[in-house]
Amino acid sequence: MEQEIIERIEGVVGKEGYSVEPAVLYTYGFDASIFHHTPDIVVQPRTTEQVSEIMKIATEYKIPVVPRGSGTGLCGAAVPIKGGIVLAMQRMNKVKRVSVADLWVDVEAGCIYNDLNAELAKYGFFFPPSPGSAEACQIGGMVATNASGMRAVKYGATRDFVLGLTFVKADGEIVRCGTRTIKDASGYQLARLMCGSEGTLGVITEVTLKLTTKPKKSASCLCGFDTVEDAGRCISAIIAKPLIPASCELMDSVSITAVNKARGNPLPDCGALCIVEVDGETDEVVDRDIKIVEEVARSVGAISVTPTKDKDLIAKWTDARKSVMTSLSALKPGCSSVSLADDMGVPVSQVPKAVKAFQEIADKYRVTIATYGHASDGNLHTKMVIDPTDKDEWDRGVAAVDEIFDVCIELGGTVTGEHGVGISKAPNYMKERASELSSIRAIKKAMDPDNILNPGKADQWVGPILGSLRYPCKEYM
Amino acid sequence: MEQEIIERIEGVVGKEGYSVEPAVLYTYGFDASIFHHTPDIVVQPRTTEQVSEIMKIATEYKIPVVPRGSGTGLCGAAVPIKGGIVLAMQRMNKVKRVSVADLWVDVEAGCIYNDLNAELAKYGFFFPPSPGSAEACQIGGMVATNASGMRAVKYGATRDFVLGLTFVKADGEIVRCGTRTIKDASGYQLARLMCGSEGTLGVITEVTLKLTTKPKKSASCLCGFDTVEDAGRCISAIIAKPLIPASCELMDSVSITAVNKARGNPLPDCGALCIVEVDGETDEVVDRDIKIVEEVARSVGAISVTPTKDKDLIAKWTDARKSVMTSLSALKPGCSSVSLADDMGVPVSQVPKAVKAFQEIADKYRVTIATYGHASDGNLHTKMVIDPTDKDEWDRGVAAVDEIFDVCIELGGTVTGEHGVGISKAPNYMKERASELSSIRAIKKAMDPDNILNPGKADQWVGPILGSLRYPCKEYM
Repeated sequence: MEQEIIERIEGVVGKEGYSVEPAVLYTYGFDASIFHHTPDIVVQPRTTEQVSEIMKIATEYKIPVVPRGSGTGLCGAAVPIKGGIVLAMQRMNKVKRVSVADLWVDVEAGCIYNDLNAELAKYGFFFPPSPGSAEACQIGGMVATNASGMRAVKYGATRDFVLGLTFVKADGEIVRCGTRTIKDASGYQLARLMCGSEGTLGVITEVTLKLTTKPKKSASCLCGFDTVEDAGRCISAIIAKPLIPASCELMDSVSITAVNKARGNPLPDCGALCIVEVDGETDEVVDRDIKIVEEVARSVGAISVTPTKDKDLIAKWTDARKSVMTSLSALKPGCSSVSLADDMGVPVSQVPKAVKAFQEIADKYRVTIATYGHASDGNLHTKMVIDPTDKDEWDRGVAAVDEIFDVCIELGGTVTGEHGVGISKAPNYMKERASELSSIRAIKKAMDPDNILNPGKADQWVGPILGSLRYPCKEYM
Repeated sequence: MEQEIIERIEGVVGKEGYSVEPAVLYTYGFDASIFHHTPDIVVQPRTTEQVSEIMKIATEYKIPVVPRGSGTGLCGAAVPIKGGIVLAMQRMNKVKRVSVADLWVDVEAGCIYNDLNAELAKYGFFFPPSPGSAEACQIGGMVATNASGMRAVKYGATRDFVLGLTFVKADGEIVRCGTRTIKDASGYQLARLMCGSEGTLGVITEVTLKLTTKPKKSASCLCGFDTVEDAGRCISAIIAKPLIPASCELMDSVSITAVNKARGNPLPDCGALCIVEVDGETDEVVDRDIKIVEEVARSVGAISVTPTKDKDLIAKWTDARKSVMTSLSALKPGCSSVSLADDMGVPVSQVPKAVKAFQEIADKYRVTIATYGHASDGNLHTKMVIDPTDKDEWDRGVAAVDEIFDVCIELGGTVTGEHGVGISKAPNYMKERASELSSIRAIKKAMDPDNILNPGKADQWVGPILGSLRYPCKEYM
């Protein structure tokens, strides 16, 4: 990056507010995806006004800008594939105000999810979306990717809680959109449009979220099955009761085996399992609901049913479920679990069919695929276990993933339920959203005419997704 | 309208699918607002494809198109102020499919809200937003205005339930956006952007809504107060418990007097009242919550507190509350209640301050203003009781309304919580959303470059709002 531009940036954020150190730049070339690309400068703004000034400079010099939360994304949305500026938001990390009687909270974009919930818990409230990266991820990143997690089926995703936000446009204009009221019917819902826009429409700097009361009681039930089909039928039957669980985590046999091997058998050894959580205001409600879960599980052929309110036991199960991704990397020597097709969504009733198809595809391409996820909202995570130095394994992996995405689209699903598009979903996203592309591109051009905001991602992606890999596979680095 | 264009339209929808009869055109020049303007043709399409063909004709001849639900809107969004085509959607009224296990329902845009809920009730589900016009309003119109109603504080507004939808762009392109999965992180949330766009971005033809289970039990409590300030403090205190009621309707003394006069005293005579509804899964939960409501009401000085589960009594209260608008027109001989500032939203804690300010403004301008509404989400309805033939009353009314909107914006609120912008809120909407206007206009231009979709409304409105009145006030007709 030219010295002149660096000096202009220093003029905005000071010496401590940016870095061009190679080691720092290298670090900010990663997120949690399979990709890597080094930016030219990392800037850590402290205010919305600083972001605005940086965007004015970026527009003047036509420099790409990639807004970045904590880099916990799994599909490359925060990897600066065109270089330029990474705007790292961690210094804007405050919970600015909790307005209890008005049911909203104002946070800076860099506020950590768990920090926010710790603050809200003081008043009996919580922000329900529960991403796997809860202890690290930032609210701005959650909005930018419309993040969710285990509780979305009952409580909704990030998009359902955003009342308003402040963002900075490509040209530096600061926009405050939405309201601090529970309802708002004024004009276009720009705040909702920003949800899931992955830094391509503007830089989110502050967010106003709606508060929700946290149910006082909960219980969980671990149900073991011979097959994933049985587990899927169990979930559909629970919902059709109707009973909407607080969460319902599915694990297939590959996931169970990997976790039991890596973590000393915390889970029963079976073909598939569901951990169903119900919550409510009283013991009577959760007792009633957990009994329904038990009965349904037995009626569809569960081989083990373990209802409990024991917090230690539930924590053990939750830890086990959360360790799938890391456990998979220990499944085979020299192999890693990689995020290729990692968070497809299908209609809940199609979960068994989808999981079966994934396994057939895995066999066809001779790759190991683990399937797990938030089954009651149809959001399935697959991780592939491959030797990441082996070009042939990558090629087979990507071919398998293309077929997996095709299956999901055919079943009425989506290529990404909660992680976003970024790079890894880009080609199949364009297939899924063919009907939307002209509108999406028109809006992008209207909001970012110079195409400097996170360029080259999603519908702008050209070619195959392999390339810019973080792994030592020389053909694709 | 030229015969050539009429014939082209007839070629699409047939002889039965349109009308240019003066009486029909006159009728479709109204919605429930204070405005009227006659369109050139009314078209009633039966399919998305017909809508697409009509839009191609409209684009070719640059004819304005106003999509229309049941015309229950209160701010003129469906009044064709530039003439042209009214696209009346009532023939596309089917519930297409309820997918119970997948938690969604597909409806055509013209489906009536109550018809949808009758169908969903068969499966134990409901679509919570509860507009006052429930028995008439259409789902497409609810999406276009992001409608809500009594239950929004607990359950959210229409925007929170839209998973996907089909719309037709100005040039006739048919776009299917969003998904039929509970979660979706793919790209821009076009379906949410369409919520509240009031027909200016496209014609909504089908909607996929998320299903929610209906709580099995409920109870209500009527709390009477000496002053609106006391009622407001009661609502803030309930929420700060925290207890989020299913609904909480506020009425001021003008509203109470009007209803008691028109309907034979269904309500206690007091300075203000709240009807608080709580719901939950068991009697235990609602008993606990209604007790909290009682205690809070007494602690802030309620003069009467009547908790009940008696459905007849609750229905009597609900009917009384729903009759405010019509009752007001009977308050003074020769006067009507008119919708000028009709659905402002303020932060809940500001409700008492807002209502007090409204009354001071009413006194200042010598108009009668009734305030009521969904107080627990800060959504206040005001109706003005004026002689609608009298220019001077209109002038004073509009001056009062401008001040009312200023107060709401100063208190951190919005000029429209649930009815939309249309014409009556347009000037103040532009004031409230000044920061968003450049983005809103850029998106509008990107989606509708010829400006044929509901032109002249919201941010395109020029001048004062008086003009095109439906009332016999010759200066403003």
